[in-house]
Amino acid sequence: MPVDNDRDHERVIFCVSDHTGLTAEAYAHGIISQFDKITPIYRSRPFSDNADKVAAVVTEVNRVAESGARPVVFSTFGDRTLQEQLDGSHGFVIGLFNHWMDSLSEVLDAKPSRQVGRSHGIVDTVQYQLRLDAVDFALQTDDGLGTDHYGRADVILVGVSRAGKTPTSLYLAMHYAIRAANFPLSPDDHSESGLPTLLQPFGDRLFGLTIEPRRLHAIRTQRRPDSPYAELEVCRSELAYTERLFRAEGIPVIDTTTRSIEEISTTIIKQAGLERRA
Amino acid sequence: MPVDNDRDHERVIFCVSDHTGLTAEAYAHGIISQFDKITPIYRSRPFSDNADKVAAVVTEVNRVAESGARPVVFSTFGDRTLQEQLDGSHGFVIGLFNHWMDSLSEVLDAKPSRQVGRSHGIVDTVQYQLRLDAVDFALQTDDGLGTDHYGRADVILVGVSRAGKTPTSLYLAMHYAIRAANFPLSPDDHSESGLPTLLQPFGDRLFGLTIEPRRLHAIRTQRRPDSPYAELEVCRSELAYTERLFRAEGIPVIDTTTRSIEEISTTIIKQAGLERRA
Repeated sequence: MPVDNDRDHERVIFCVSDHTGLTAEAYAHGIISQFDKITPIYRSRPFSDNADKVAAVVTEVNRVAESGARPVVFSTFGDRTLQEQLDGSHGFVIGLFNHWMDSLSEVLDAKPSRQVGRSHGIVDTVQYQLRLDAVDFALQTDDGLGTDHYGRADVILVGVSRAGKTPTSLYLAMHYAIRAANFPLSPDDHSESGLPTLLQPFGDRLFGLTIEPRRLHAIRTQRRPDSPYAELEVCRSELAYTERLFRAEGIPVIDTTTRSIEEISTTIIKQAGLERRA
Repeated sequence: MPVDNDRDHERVIFCVSDHTGLTAEAYAHGIISQFDKITPIYRSRPFSDNADKVAAVVTEVNRVAESGARPVVFSTFGDRTLQEQLDGSHGFVIGLFNHWMDSLSEVLDAKPSRQVGRSHGIVDTVQYQLRLDAVDFALQTDDGLGTDHYGRADVILVGVSRAGKTPTSLYLAMHYAIRAANFPLSPDDHSESGLPTLLQPFGDRLFGLTIEPRRLHAIRTQRRPDSPYAELEVCRSELAYTERLFRAEGIPVIDTTTRSIEEISTTIIKQAGLERRA
């Protein structure tokens, strides 16, 4: 009987926390993605903030361990007792906070608060408001809208339709409270030479997005099948136009073809030297 | 001379990576927030993907170390040589991937790929598309728009204006490719008894957002100062109405007052049992 290699390399990965579990998830995805061979099956168990809830997770981990490959458990607990309870499971447990807490405590000359599921109070209210304002800004100035607000923009993303401008603007707003507008460079602009008049006062805040023609064709086809808008030749021509424009105007540019929204956003922050507000 | 306690507890925290650095940042924020006394000053150095760039970071870390408290350096490198180069700095270096790589490799019975700044190729294209579609959906169905798309919604967030519906919908879309619509419960609905007619077919997909009246008052005041909309009494009355409605209709509800967008989103996913598509 042939070995079922795919199933052999499936592995259940738990992310457990007494809070959102986002740190454990980010860490798990980051380190597990280093292992090409492994097909991870993620199970998130956030807000496991008392002994009963952790006991339920331990039972689940042990059940997986009994029935197949040993599961890997990434965890972040403020509460050491809950972490130790989880450590008693039959999974391979990586207690992300606990492991470095003592040495970090020494270096920082401070004691951790060990609160369960910390909430952050006043600082978060300010941060929340900054992010909310930035999201509002991104929505107001999405896709060429609200150009009268451009004076307040930290960055204005430009590029052809479906190059990734909207999700990037929203990500920059949501995560960093950066005010990102976005403006589509559409076929109508082709007649103009150089930058559309509206954008000219903001040359130093522009950031270009580009994408490979075939990928753009695929994205547009999914959106409007068989439309002229989605034709490969139209995609090629629009992209050639915007790339010429970016070069001529010295606009920095990122190719979004094989990049995630996170990669696009962090690259823009770094290259444009944007300041994070949150 | 009195001791300047605030400055004493400032600490420079580096997050260094050969990729976006988001994992290192998530981890650093998570663990450092356990130390109430510490005022962190974060410096992110993403895309440090060759020896020259890492050398520049080492120089920067050493400069901070010479001039004050020892900086803490959180790092995620796929490339072990770059990690070791950073380990040679005078900061307190926490190499997040390196530390567990060998034991994890053993448990997984697989070797890490050790690629610098991995990009993810085909899987990410699918994920990207799912997230893009969900963001489009959130925008189409924001604030009571596009109710004819509700058949495709995974969840419909309901609540008064400025309770946090829009950023939550966008976060759910961006991060989990969950299709979240949102519908404002406005004063006009007060005359109706029970759920607005439009929402009635979707009772099992509704999730309520509420917020403390004073906080809502503050948020609305910032948006439209001295408007009837922002008056504390109006806020109180609208919230009392929606909370009665949530109870009467058995709609699950989350109080957004002291929660971050991440906390609101992950709580809704857990409580509503939503499936993440990405």
